Amino acid sequence: MSSSELMKKRVKKIRAGLSKAKADCLIVTKPANVTYATGFFGDDSWAIITPENVYLLTDSRYTEQARNQCRGCKIIQRTKPLPQAAANLLKKSKSIRFPAIEKSASIAEFETLKKQLGVRFKGATDVIESVRDIKDNSEIAAIKKAAQIATQAFKRARWFIKPRMTENQLAARLDFEIRKAEGTNSFDTIVAFGSNASRPHHQPTGRKFKVNDTVLIDFGVKFNGYCCDLTRCLAVGKVSAFYKKVYKAVQEAQSAAINMVKAGVEIHKVDAAARKVIKSHNLPVYGHGTGHGLGLEVHEQPIVAKKIQGKLQAGMVLTIEPGVYIPGKLGIRIEDDVLVTQDGCKILTGSCPHWLWSADQDLKSV
Amino acid sequence: MSSSELMKKRVKKIRAGLSKAKADCLIVTKPANVTYATGFFGDDSWAIITPENVYLLTDSRYTEQARNQCRGCKIIQRTKPLPQAAANLLKKSKSIRFPAIEKSASIAEFETLKKQLGVRFKGATDVIESVRDIKDNSEIAAIKKAAQIATQAFKRARWFIKPRMTENQLAARLDFEIRKAEGTNSFDTIVAFGSNASRPHHQPTGRKFKVNDTVLIDFGVKFNGYCCDLTRCLAVGKVSAFYKKVYKAVQEAQSAAINMVKAGVEIHKVDAAARKVIKSHNLPVYGHGTGHGLGLEVHEQPIVAKKIQGKLQAGMVLTIEPGVYIPGKLGIRIEDDVLVTQDGCKILTGSCPHWLWSADQDLKSV
Repeated sequence: MSSSELMKKRVKKIRAGLSKAKADCLIVTKPANVTYATGFFGDDSWAIITPENVYLLTDSRYTEQARNQCRGCKIIQRTKPLPQAAANLLKKSKSIRFPAIEKSASIAEFETLKKQLGVRFKGATDVIESVRDIKDNSEIAAIKKAAQIATQAFKRARWFIKPRMTENQLAARLDFEIRKAEGTNSFDTIVAFGSNASRPHHQPTGRKFKVNDTVLIDFGVKFNGYCCDLTRCLAVGKVSAFYKKVYKAVQEAQSAAINMVKAGVEIHKVDAAARKVIKSHNLPVYGHGTGHGLGLEVHEQPIVAKKIQGKLQAGMVLTIEPGVYIPGKLGIRIEDDVLVTQDGCKILTGSCPHWLWSADQDLKSV
Repeated sequence: MSSSELMKKRVKKIRAGLSKAKADCLIVTKPANVTYATGFFGDDSWAIITPENVYLLTDSRYTEQARNQCRGCKIIQRTKPLPQAAANLLKKSKSIRFPAIEKSASIAEFETLKKQLGVRFKGATDVIESVRDIKDNSEIAAIKKAAQIATQAFKRARWFIKPRMTENQLAARLDFEIRKAEGTNSFDTIVAFGSNASRPHHQPTGRKFKVNDTVLIDFGVKFNGYCCDLTRCLAVGKVSAFYKKVYKAVQEAQSAAINMVKAGVEIHKVDAAARKVIKSHNLPVYGHGTGHGLGLEVHEQPIVAKKIQGKLQAGMVLTIEPGVYIPGKLGIRIEDDVLVTQDGCKILTGSCPHWLWSADQDLKSV
């Protein structure tokens, strides 16, 4: 499918969602949604989807880029702030009667629009997000490629790990390997040595790697706009029996969750499967969710957590990332990305090695 | 001043701004404002400033970090989404009568809060932003350090520029040098070879550097949460007379604007000074602003552009970045960061070399 056909298909689905919400026009303000509906990868731009057209409101920094990336769109070069530019466009479009705006727009933007247009806006929650939940083949291919780059970068960076290297240096090396392989970071790389890993979102520091130390690396690659997100834990040299025990428990928890993944399964059951295993090992159950959707954004619908309503659908891409955190002692998380299928799932990050370099042969390169 | 005294001073100023807006409580949702008011550097957290306390609403991923970073705050470990957690806290605080919320909060967040609390919210626009406009000494020191790291990284990375290197590879190298020097990127590095530079926010590609080529690099470093932002143009080998002429015009425009900077000067006059020079050379006047504030965010108040009301104040930190863009031909922008003082300004990025490697001696290392 050509990219302009793909865009048409997406816009058709978005318009169907809009008409369900009894709206005839959507002001798209969330950057990832603008990209999804138009193909545009710049910043500071909105899309407006009307029954006839898809408009891209951008500024002079991006018009040249927009002309290349958004063949199916009408490109408006704005000089006013976005809410005013959008209001001006809508004022001219007399046929629009029930505009909707994304609820991720800010209060300030909404107030300007309401004031300028003097109309009531329709509530239209998650119209584009709901279309984005199910990835098409081009999206899955981009996530796979991101995962390949991540694997390649990880395999190269791990050889640099050695005593006295800092968390910052390892993060820098990994990010450099990602960039050399034509990817970018999908979020700030987390590198946590030893007990620093008990903070699930630790920021790398000058903490030095010791002889017989452990490391948690949580990182992601963006390729063609699409993200992957994975976490690996490594031990270099000798590793304590306790660390090993916890690692195996987390691995077991992750497998239990992955084995649950299949189109039609209730999402909270995937979450429960992982927690049950951690509990059965008498380890503290993690406070974060078991996973999340990912695609143009590194965190998307659906969240895989307790009390989440809804079922998995084929074409969703999720992380599965249980962990165990014991402050002052250790933090272990294992995270992979899976594509939900009718029969189960495909692991997109499977080629990135789990667990490395332990002196204990039984755990080497699982 | 200790960091907790500093925080107290900031919160005092914020409370003064709130009382001007006739509000007694502020729900702080913008990440940079949360950092400014609490010292917290994690994600997915809000602050609530009441007459008695500063609360940080965070989740289990960040509680350990929050306890270290936010000594003066009451830390609430939430399990609900942020708007609900905020509503629950406010419901318990009977003394709060006139809550305000930042207008950068989303429509969805605002709707949840209104529904849960059943109160009218005060409009409180830019309360924290207005305090942030004037940087204190610790902030200026952090921006200076960020600029030092940027200079060091740039000086190292430039030696790697050679024919057949791609834009991506140069961006990767520069970012690696930044990370090795303990900084992070304050935004995605822009590297544009030759005529690619006519897109002011070009994203690096696989375009290869040629013999006798030019490059525009727009990059920034974040250190201790604070950003710098600078742009350098380089020619390697022989450079056309036209490129040289335009470079000199942009340099002259930047100097004209920098010479205007001083506490008390109307902001739009700084913008006009740069444009006037570009115009006088019969070159196309750039579509973007001449500059912007920077600090915890890479784009902050004030915007330096036409029609902007307001005067410069001592302690503001601004970029000054005029440019000339001719699609298919060239793009040249020169950007430095300046601290506004009573007598004029200090250039914080001045140690980073301008223009390099031209075969023409007169332009070498200006």
